[in-house]
Amino acid sequence: MDQFHIIGAKQFDRANLEELFELTEEMEKVEASGGSDRYKTKVMTTLFFEPSTRTRLSFESAMCRLGGKVIGTENAAQFSSAIKGETLEDTIRIVSGYSDVIVMRHTEIGAAERAAAVATVPIINAGDGAGEHPTQALLDIYTIQKELGQVDDLKIAMIGDLTYGRTVHSLSYLLSRFNGIKIYYTAPENVLIPPYVKKFLEVNHVEYVETNDLEEVAAKVDVLYQTRIQKERFPSLDEYEKAKGKYIINNSILKLMKKDAIIMHPLPRAGEIATEVDTDPRAAYFRQAQNGLYVRMALIHKCFEKQGFVKKTIKI
Amino acid sequence: MDQFHIIGAKQFDRANLEELFELTEEMEKVEASGGSDRYKTKVMTTLFFEPSTRTRLSFESAMCRLGGKVIGTENAAQFSSAIKGETLEDTIRIVSGYSDVIVMRHTEIGAAERAAAVATVPIINAGDGAGEHPTQALLDIYTIQKELGQVDDLKIAMIGDLTYGRTVHSLSYLLSRFNGIKIYYTAPENVLIPPYVKKFLEVNHVEYVETNDLEEVAAKVDVLYQTRIQKERFPSLDEYEKAKGKYIINNSILKLMKKDAIIMHPLPRAGEIATEVDTDPRAAYFRQAQNGLYVRMALIHKCFEKQGFVKKTIKI
Amino acid sequence: MDQFHIIGAKQFDRANLEELFELTEEMEKVEASGGSDRYKTKVMTTLFFEPSTRTRLSFESAMCRLGGKVIGTENAAQFSSAIKGETLEDTIRIVSGYSDVIVMRHTEIGAAERAAAVATVPIINAGDGAGEHPTQALLDIYTIQKELGQVDDLKIAMIGDLTYGRTVHSLSYLLSRFNGIKIYYTAPENVLIPPYVKKFLEVNHVEYVETNDLEEVAAKVDVLYQTRIQKERFPSLDEYEKAKGKYIINNSILKLMKKDAIIMHPLPRAGEIATEVDTDPRAAYFRQAQNGLYVRMALIHKCFEKQGFVKKTIKI
Repeated sequence: MDQFHIIGAKQFDRANLEELFELTEEMEKVEASGGSDRYKTKVMTTLFFEPSTRTRLSFESAMCRLGGKVIGTENAAQFSSAIKGETLEDTIRIVSGYSDVIVMRHTEIGAAERAAAVATVPIINAGDGAGEHPTQALLDIYTIQKELGQVDDLKIAMIGDLTYGRTVHSLSYLLSRFNGIKIYYTAPENVLIPPYVKKFLEVNHVEYVETNDLEEVAAKVDVLYQTRIQKERFPSLDEYEKAKGKYIINNSILKLMKKDAIIMHPLPRAGEIATEVDTDPRAAYFRQAQNGLYVRMALIHKCFEKQGFVKKTIKI
Repeated sequence: MDQFHIIGAKQFDRANLEELFELTEEMEKVEASGGSDRYKTKVMTTLFFEPSTRTRLSFESAMCRLGGKVIGTENAAQFSSAIKGETLEDTIRIVSGYSDVIVMRHTEIGAAERAAAVATVPIINAGDGAGEHPTQALLDIYTIQKELGQVDDLKIAMIGDLTYGRTVHSLSYLLSRFNGIKIYYTAPENVLIPPYVKKFLEVNHVEYVETNDLEEVAAKVDVLYQTRIQKERFPSLDEYEKAKGKYIINNSILKLMKKDAIIMHPLPRAGEIATEVDTDPRAAYFRQAQNGLYVRMALIHKCFEKQGFVKKTIKI
Repeated sequence: MDQFHIIGAKQFDRANLEELFELTEEMEKVEASGGSDRYKTKVMTTLFFEPSTRTRLSFESAMCRLGGKVIGTENAAQFSSAIKGETLEDTIRIVSGYSDVIVMRHTEIGAAERAAAVATVPIINAGDGAGEHPTQALLDIYTIQKELGQVDDLKIAMIGDLTYGRTVHSLSYLLSRFNGIKIYYTAPENVLIPPYVKKFLEVNHVEYVETNDLEEVAAKVDVLYQTRIQKERFPSLDEYEKAKGKYIINNSILKLMKKDAIIMHPLPRAGEIATEVDTDPRAAYFRQAQNGLYVRMALIHKCFEKQGFVKKTIKI
């Protein structure tokens, strides 16, 4: 059977994204009105081979809000069958028989694609190692649309660890679906945006610049997309502290920002946005996390409707 | 929005307790009739930063009996966001958006209060370190009321580790809401009831005595509230064994007890009530555990009704 | 109250099994039609003192398909009360009060029987150490019936670790309820079927042979029931590899098999059935795993109907 799977950001074209925006808005209304029991006979299995409590709870809550039931495991690293040497394919074949949709997080790149190849129910990729985490990218782009009323013609800064932070890669792919975008990659020398992402943008005619000057960027952009900088990426603690200090969003950065710009962050944060920023209306990161619930409700709904988004991959 | 949170025993005054008793009785009927689906669109999140399987299952079952849905984590010590340095406040802000009520257990005193300060849904404290565990105290006081028909004018012995056992502290606070109470603190020298609890009782005019003679006490009281004595509190294994032996409730203690007295224990027990006692009708500890279900149903119901008990703190 | 518990394979006589077959067929229809909400007010607790993700998810999905709710713990080895020294009996007494049925997995033989002795709700044994795992045996026998239309007069080979693999023991017990059975125990010297199983078969007039020649057996039987061979049972890695190699089901074994025979495996597998076999229609092991869902639905239903199978034990 031809299933609808959510594997990577690149499978979504502009029409898919616009349909998703519309559907997500509907889901906000469903949630605000106390939820639905539309999918009360459906079962979601959350298979998390590495822990990600927040993401798991977000999916599980989305399923509950649609009336469905959830089973799962929060630590499939201890998944007893995997320990006994079972392949991911065998696990998915069997769990498919217990489920109407499987939300999977795995440590290996490509695991979601492998799961989708044998599953008899939709697979939603909740992160596969250094690979993709498409629902994060989708909630990011939805947040931009919702907060600013459009995605076209925006200036977006992505800040922090641009090498290992997979959310900025996936968001870059999605932004390529819109017009007049300009991305400001703002990062320390050792965690720059990778060449293959830049190549992708060039092929898709997306304008971008690279810089290490947060203050200059802050004054120009519509979106400041902040991410964590991880200690272990730096040659010394000293260099880490220096880099980190330069990229903190605080009240002085706020003062430089446009009045209707927004600050986003995939969360969790660990100091790179000062808490003094939280009360500013431009601080959109908690609203962004909340949007994750609505976007996931919309995606689960699409899985059950079995009239999923056309899966297209664009060339790189 | 002004939420109703359940943080500590002291927030309940006598009127609150009497309302709770009445509501809990109703909940017993709801459960006996096979449960309700009143809250079928509601979602409870159980956030347990340290494991407490029994307490968690009790809350989750209570939510199910009211028709609600449960998501959660049974080991948030591995909570991935916390590991990445996220503050409790950020976690609660986000999980609030996925939930209609959060039941939280944490290792640090005051964690529930901190959570309540930022939550947009009710927080129920299921234990915060050496701090409070108010639902245990509430099920204890309900059990006394239900078993003996009253709380006023009772003689209550609390036995065992009175220094570190937080349940006896919270129960002491709740007993101060009633009249004619006399408490017999019955403990080895090294785990006596702390001065601040005694101070509280004095301010609130509650009579109490301290003793180390279980046999004498057993003959006098209406309630024997037994607790575990923990090995690690004693200077030597020898002294531990000696102390422990003196405070075991067995058939010879049963013989001394009044005919209509009851034996309570927050459970789990580890030998301090002999199993030979289990069949005596005065052994109320399994009924007490069962009452936990009904009390938690009542409390969850109050959270959703949003007409919570007035939060008052009495001076110490 | 006299409860219906599912403790071991031997409690099922032929009439029970035939009733179960019929009920399971009905459950397949219930599942295919999108599930039921018949038991929407019922709560199942899954108490897993050792992890077995697959089995747990199968039970939880079965409960969901019947409309019920599930609470539980996926790692009761860390069960906080057990760590504090609580007996299994105390745990079960209390959890009984939160549940309508308890599915329990434990590390010790006889744990399910001990639980049933004190439970006030049905206990379903999901494996007690080297003891029984009756629902696996029941799904095995159901699979044979469904795939081949009968169990009587069949030739069944059990292959691999016949000493420690409890599923082959339980399946042997169930096969004794049928007529004209012949079992081919096919195993390396060091993991032969134990004397007490052979004794049981002799008392119950079941024909069996012991062999180590998989090729010869493959040509004769209606069912090849494969199991894992575990490295640690062998004196040396060399002997393990030699033994393992001799018992792999692959395309050359397939060629020897009867056209309408089937291959079964309790799963997970770790190489003892080559993946090249998966596409052959005789590969029944994934269908077998799926049958587990239906059989468990049937068993849960029987628990709630409280008109359980008569518990009989046949002499050994």
